[in-house]
Amino acid sequence: MSFREVGKRLSNWGRWGDCDRIGTLNHLTPERTAFAAQSVRSGQIVNLGLPLTNQGIQVGLGGRVNPIHMMNLTPPDFAGRSDRMIVADDSVFLPLQSVTQWDGLGHVGYDDMLYNGVPAASITTAAGSAKLSIHQIAERGVIGRGLLLDIARLRGKDRLEAGEAITPADLDAALAAQNCETLPGDVIILRTGWMRCFTVDGDAARYWNGEPGINLACAEWLHGRQISALASDNWGIEAMPANDATFEMPVHCVLIRDMGMTLGEVFVLEKLAEACERENRWTFLFTAPPLLVVGGVGSPLTPLAIL
Amino acid sequence: MSFREVGKRLSNWGRWGDCDRIGTLNHLTPERTAFAAQSVRSGQIVNLGLPLTNQGIQVGLGGRVNPIHMMNLTPPDFAGRSDRMIVADDSVFLPLQSVTQWDGLGHVGYDDMLYNGVPAASITTAAGSAKLSIHQIAERGVIGRGLLLDIARLRGKDRLEAGEAITPADLDAALAAQNCETLPGDVIILRTGWMRCFTVDGDAARYWNGEPGINLACAEWLHGRQISALASDNWGIEAMPANDATFEMPVHCVLIRDMGMTLGEVFVLEKLAEACERENRWTFLFTAPPLLVVGGVGSPLTPLAIL
Amino acid sequence: MSFREVGKRLSNWGRWGDCDRIGTLNHLTPERTAFAAQSVRSGQIVNLGLPLTNQGIQVGLGGRVNPIHMMNLTPPDFAGRSDRMIVADDSVFLPLQSVTQWDGLGHVGYDDMLYNGVPAASITTAAGSAKLSIHQIAERGVIGRGLLLDIARLRGKDRLEAGEAITPADLDAALAAQNCETLPGDVIILRTGWMRCFTVDGDAARYWNGEPGINLACAEWLHGRQISALASDNWGIEAMPANDATFEMPVHCVLIRDMGMTLGEVFVLEKLAEACERENRWTFLFTAPPLLVVGGVGSPLTPLAIL
Amino acid sequence: MSFREVGKRLSNWGRWGDCDRIGTLNHLTPERTAFAAQSVRSGQIVNLGLPLTNQGIQVGLGGRVNPIHMMNLTPPDFAGRSDRMIVADDSVFLPLQSVTQWDGLGHVGYDDMLYNGVPAASITTAAGSAKLSIHQIAERGVIGRGLLLDIARLRGKDRLEAGEAITPADLDAALAAQNCETLPGDVIILRTGWMRCFTVDGDAARYWNGEPGINLACAEWLHGRQISALASDNWGIEAMPANDATFEMPVHCVLIRDMGMTLGEVFVLEKLAEACERENRWTFLFTAPPLLVVGGVGSPLTPLAIL
Repeated sequence: MSFREVGKRLSNWGRWGDCDRIGTLNHLTPERTAFAAQSVRSGQIVNLGLPLTNQGIQVGLGGRVNPIHMMNLTPPDFAGRSDRMIVADDSVFLPLQSVTQWDGLGHVGYDDMLYNGVPAASITTAAGSAKLSIHQIAERGVIGRGLLLDIARLRGKDRLEAGEAITPADLDAALAAQNCETLPGDVIILRTGWMRCFTVDGDAARYWNGEPGINLACAEWLHGRQISALASDNWGIEAMPANDATFEMPVHCVLIRDMGMTLGEVFVLEKLAEACERENRWTFLFTAPPLLVVGGVGSPLTPLAIL
Repeated sequence: MSFREVGKRLSNWGRWGDCDRIGTLNHLTPERTAFAAQSVRSGQIVNLGLPLTNQGIQVGLGGRVNPIHMMNLTPPDFAGRSDRMIVADDSVFLPLQSVTQWDGLGHVGYDDMLYNGVPAASITTAAGSAKLSIHQIAERGVIGRGLLLDIARLRGKDRLEAGEAITPADLDAALAAQNCETLPGDVIILRTGWMRCFTVDGDAARYWNGEPGINLACAEWLHGRQISALASDNWGIEAMPANDATFEMPVHCVLIRDMGMTLGEVFVLEKLAEACERENRWTFLFTAPPLLVVGGVGSPLTPLAIL
Repeated sequence: MSFREVGKRLSNWGRWGDCDRIGTLNHLTPERTAFAAQSVRSGQIVNLGLPLTNQGIQVGLGGRVNPIHMMNLTPPDFAGRSDRMIVADDSVFLPLQSVTQWDGLGHVGYDDMLYNGVPAASITTAAGSAKLSIHQIAERGVIGRGLLLDIARLRGKDRLEAGEAITPADLDAALAAQNCETLPGDVIILRTGWMRCFTVDGDAARYWNGEPGINLACAEWLHGRQISALASDNWGIEAMPANDATFEMPVHCVLIRDMGMTLGEVFVLEKLAEACERENRWTFLFTAPPLLVVGGVGSPLTPLAIL
Repeated sequence: MSFREVGKRLSNWGRWGDCDRIGTLNHLTPERTAFAAQSVRSGQIVNLGLPLTNQGIQVGLGGRVNPIHMMNLTPPDFAGRSDRMIVADDSVFLPLQSVTQWDGLGHVGYDDMLYNGVPAASITTAAGSAKLSIHQIAERGVIGRGLLLDIARLRGKDRLEAGEAITPADLDAALAAQNCETLPGDVIILRTGWMRCFTVDGDAARYWNGEPGINLACAEWLHGRQISALASDNWGIEAMPANDATFEMPVHCVLIRDMGMTLGEVFVLEKLAEACERENRWTFLFTAPPLLVVGGVGSPLTPLAIL
């Protein structure tokens, strides 16, 4: 079955109305958010984001540079002014896909269409993604139960290899090994260990040269369990290079364009994995609103797990 | 008593060690975060942030422009490529103080010093705020109990006037009117209604021309109650113009530089006020991590209240 | 006759080959450049550009902000380093149309086409103007004889009014009043005095609210005389609002898209007018290369007249 | 003799008044500009600049990224609007030292001072280089006689090696080999061939790893001959690594800070060398105004040689 057929079968177009702009986040109802909050135990907060710095993970592929932080005011601007406070101000220039990020629903499509039948032509240079904008997701927030699926742990490795595919059976096995179960509205946080290329080895080029990730069959798994969003420590969710090279990144396409699933990429999961292991608990409150970028197709963020 | 004397009396320098970089957020312990999570009832999420758009609230004061969102890739870049997905990518340039924001602890100081005895000279053009960086606050997250103090409601107005000062007695009266009490580690969200200049009247210039806010005596109130952070819908927390014009923005200085309190500015509180009024409940889970900007003195964010 | 018919009649498509990318600058041959250089007398240099500053002429129309200059390194970054030099480095963010500028040949078109039959679709978000790029003009330089036509002087005013049209008869009258004649390859510098709205009155908003300029009949005048480029102190070359409101900016369209004429806008001509008046000489060496922006549709520059 | 002693001996501080901001460009008088214009023969224009592109010569050293060109408007923004013209607009973000550039007189200093006794503290984050600004050089233009000294040709190589020093004797030998002589006000264009690392070999990293260039003794040579400016195809004018490692880049310091000489770097000289060889003529009209960046310490430009 081609990915187009899979996409058609798993399509959520129209499921939440013709004007829906948030897709599977509809599974994350206020009730699910409230339930997730109740799961907090210790109150320990774990940050899952990469720092924004010009020494970051980007190597310039596709014109993506690392964030550029610039000062607009520093204390010497107020030299000799003992009558007033010193102020420091700053600016940043960054590609919205340059660091730990959400892919919004305008980020990818195929056959001239985006999620929910929105024409790709709704994205223009001036207006950005006029109909499927990341600020729509930000306004509604992303706060729910996070569930870490630690595939590297399952396989007894510190990281999977580039091209190594994760199947639905793996996801089930991870759930079993962790003795937990998904609930509708959960955000799945998938750990492949691939981020260690950068955070441990300091090899950004390797990080971008392929990746382990899920295969297309997992889309159905996510669909059936009413998962609201998916995030991972790889850069594109799916195994790359893929076995089937007839179309680039079919999983991305089915998840975002057909199912309407917002994807989190370039997450940092090592500390979270350690904490979950230590506490033998794999679910937590997960807060991860993007920035309110009007017309945006993605956003940097500081995702947090509260245990 | 001069603000310098107040600052000395309320100083938290050394309180959490000489290397402390997060100040009063130390009051927001994991226990307080866990407690705050338990206060979630309906799971309703209210966004407290302004959208990032070039039609935003900035009028160019101090070189602060509105966020500039630019597309790097749009679907026509993939015209005629039915063999691959369409991708849209984007970038943003923005002053970190141009929208709903946290002021980090490197943002203001006086007498050549920042919070905890860090020299103002630790902020340089190239490295930014090398010692007191907003990413230190982001790494640890800002998730705790939020308490809305609705001063506009207290005064029976839709907004206070520019220069109108809020005193400790007002804060007490608001607590009484709302029938609630602060707890150590709470984040106080102070509503003056001032944001309506922009969101209702569309008059950005007026928004920046003075503001209602707290007076210096409130610093002691915040200190005594171990408040972890303070956010408001005005742009500088304190009443402006102030009665005492001998030093610009003394409240800012005492809160940030002496007490080490991270300040939230340009928040949008109208929907939250309505929700709290409706539910007659003024506390909620508040999640508000800044971005992980290394060397940053501030950060845009999407602050959320979960009721 | 509609502007489309005029455009067809004056079209230079194919005139210099199907791959031509510089249009009427072909009139400015090396011989004309050499001749222009010989016209230098005193060697006095007059700058015709606006400064790049955040206090510039832009008011935010169409998302055009003023240039934003930022420091990357300042001397305090080298404090205490007597063993090495101090360095200052800087960056700039600017819309390429935000200051004194050339409009490249990719800047405007109509009916889905640009100059020389290049499809408008050749301009994409990622690649910019892939076929008609301003760097092609920069590589070849713009150095030739400039001829100031001072229409404000002709009319005995310090400036023309918004909407005030300049006709071929005016251009002829200015030539006669200045006792000079055009030569093939000349760059015409047209002074309307309109820039005084900003440089004298400080009223940037007025500057953008209409403008004096040429009418469509002047296109034929420029065509017949083999003028290589046209620059003015207004922002869009033609009178605005125009008498004929059926199509916005037809002169722009015919000049750039049909004739292939690079247009200079937002020039500062007051000092040049004074110098020409003083020396009773209206021609000079004119040097005005844009920046080598690959894919660019415009460029800031420092245009110079050498008398 | 230490470089500080050399600097003192060759100092031009006060030579053109205490308020002078352009240094040795004072040698380039209107008379010299007029003379230079007369030297134009064929009118052939040779561009000496690198293209501005994200595939440029920068490798990220010192936070210098390649220019980032972004579109603000493209034709699809006007889809379905047959009643109006199509417009494309664009923006650029770039470090001013990221491409072929002038170093302004605020770019380097030592012992807390810049050229002409201007304190290094006159450069602040907010105002940039308030006293020695590149726009002062732009306003006055840089147009004079250029003289190519082709040291690679002299040595019979296509390029000198990193660290290979050029001495006054070499400069004299090149003049003799080229059968020409300097005149006061000349701009010296020094070809080392080093740019071929990038333009021929495509090895940007090698380009930045050392460079051939002049030694300190050449400063006196330039001083005595009243050279107005110096440009080269290397990135820092002087041989690196240098024999004397007690102070980094002493030649830079003496030329810019003591003599007040604006330096051109990262020039592309291969085509010019070929043209000069072909015509056996090594002088030409050289036009090279920087952008009018207020507070700037450097500027990209499109330098042109007119033969």
